[in-house]
Amino acid sequence: MSGEFSLIDKYFAHKQQSRKDVVLAQGDDCAIVAPSNGSHIAISTDTLVSGTHFLADADPAHIAHKALASNISDLVAMGASPAWVSMGISLPEMNASWLERFSSAFFKLADYYGIQLIGGDTTRGPLTITLTVQGLVPEGKALTRHGAESGDWIYVTGKLGDAKAGLDVILEKNISGDRELNSELQRRHFEATPRVLAGLALRDIASSAIDISDGLISDLGHILKRSNVGARLNVAELPFSDELVRFVGGTEAAQQYALTSGEEYELCFTVPEANRGQLEVALSTTPFTCIGRSPGLVS
Amino acid sequence: MSGEFSLIDKYFAHKQQSRKDVVLAQGDDCAIVAPSNGSHIAISTDTLVSGTHFLADADPAHIAHKALASNISDLVAMGASPAWVSMGISLPEMNASWLERFSSAFFKLADYYGIQLIGGDTTRGPLTITLTVQGLVPEGKALTRHGAESGDWIYVTGKLGDAKAGLDVILEKNISGDRELNSELQRRHFEATPRVLAGLALRDIASSAIDISDGLISDLGHILKRSNVGARLNVAELPFSDELVRFVGGTEAAQQYALTSGEEYELCFTVPEANRGQLEVALSTTPFTCIGRSPGLVS
Repeated sequence: MSGEFSLIDKYFAHKQQSRKDVVLAQGDDCAIVAPSNGSHIAISTDTLVSGTHFLADADPAHIAHKALASNISDLVAMGASPAWVSMGISLPEMNASWLERFSSAFFKLADYYGIQLIGGDTTRGPLTITLTVQGLVPEGKALTRHGAESGDWIYVTGKLGDAKAGLDVILEKNISGDRELNSELQRRHFEATPRVLAGLALRDIASSAIDISDGLISDLGHILKRSNVGARLNVAELPFSDELVRFVGGTEAAQQYALTSGEEYELCFTVPEANRGQLEVALSTTPFTCIGRSPGLVS
Repeated sequence: MSGEFSLIDKYFAHKQQSRKDVVLAQGDDCAIVAPSNGSHIAISTDTLVSGTHFLADADPAHIAHKALASNISDLVAMGASPAWVSMGISLPEMNASWLERFSSAFFKLADYYGIQLIGGDTTRGPLTITLTVQGLVPEGKALTRHGAESGDWIYVTGKLGDAKAGLDVILEKNISGDRELNSELQRRHFEATPRVLAGLALRDIASSAIDISDGLISDLGHILKRSNVGARLNVAELPFSDELVRFVGGTEAAQQYALTSGEEYELCFTVPEANRGQLEVALSTTPFTCIGRSPGLVS
């Protein structure tokens, strides 16, 4: 890009320390990376469009966080360690304060997870962001959706439903009278973070995994369909926050939110009976809950 | 995506044979690829936006070709062998005939170069296409922009300028009276293809390389700046077609087109004196021309 628009590049160029496996970052025809021998590479692409995935006047820091976090969450659900990201971004105009906020939030999250921006393309156009994120996973260790077997136990990390409640607040739908509660749930929506440590720890334990981006029912359904197994959920075991119960007005409504809330970045995964004992140690810093079993014998 | 929009996926899902190094393609949280040991990976991202990079009513086959060819050209300019592509695409509506033409042209070019579509994201939004293409290059063999040295000879592949003439025809600017000539140049613009074989053959011969996407002057400028060397071009040696001379009405105008025409997908590269003798054999199927020398002693 020539002229004013090329200024945009300065918000994204050379803002990070170079990873050891990045041979060449921005500034040539391509980036060059050097994956370690024996590593497989996990690759995820997400596109966010203004008006479809976020409101046109959304805080650019929230947009950046969402764009990167959702992609990292996909890596994590495969047991991959985040490494590199490429960005295609279209902007209707050169807007310095927007770019400053967007890129700051982007690099904050990228640095936190040790991800390096290795290149991309900046163009003039309707606000659209496409990220391709790549991560490393030892050969044969990727957590797929198709590995669950009959008898495996079904788990989720964290608590479910807050993201949907937060979205209600953003969309000014079903808002509670408690302003502090509203803003806390909105904050949780915007600041939800991927379960990176849990994803890595589950590599040798879980038989399948997925991140909860469309809602538990839908995402667990992907595992069951791809693994060709059934499941019986123990809805009474679904984990959710006290704040969610207060927001929706009761336990049953909270369960409904927990079943359908998307963009949680929590993991849903299955574990064979033989590996259950390892979970407590492997996920020592991550809350998790057993919510059912395939094909359906709930303990 | 739910509903009608998920139908779009059928135009892109499982249309190709799987490469041996693709462990998992579409249908999970991520794709998984297995680069061969000792390989580095070259990664390029390009975004095309309707109205900025192509006309809103452009033939979708031409859009697909351009999106993929320009990215492949970036890989080739690094000496990388094309391997995998991820696509983020936004479309304002579900349009079966548009998708049919777009995806057919996309897979035709991808299959030709042995590239597999490994995933992506389809959303509703203004027409925007972001591709991230990846290729393999042996460790330490990538052709960068910063390797040129004083005394190296400067070369280009093919003939330059036709792409700019073709764009003139598309934009109905400076059109010649010869309709057959017009349509031939327009065809060359749309069907320009990357110099894949030449890029691979130059790995052990060239000291630097770039693809001519912004025009020779601009792109050679990138090499000179990054390599910190000068250059003296022999404009009389610039290669261009007889059709271009007829279109622009003379040799001098054709030289101007050759110097500034972008989206050519021809390569500009530098070769040390010691390697010049290997060029004839290495590029036996690719036309190439010596157009100058750095720091300027033209033979």
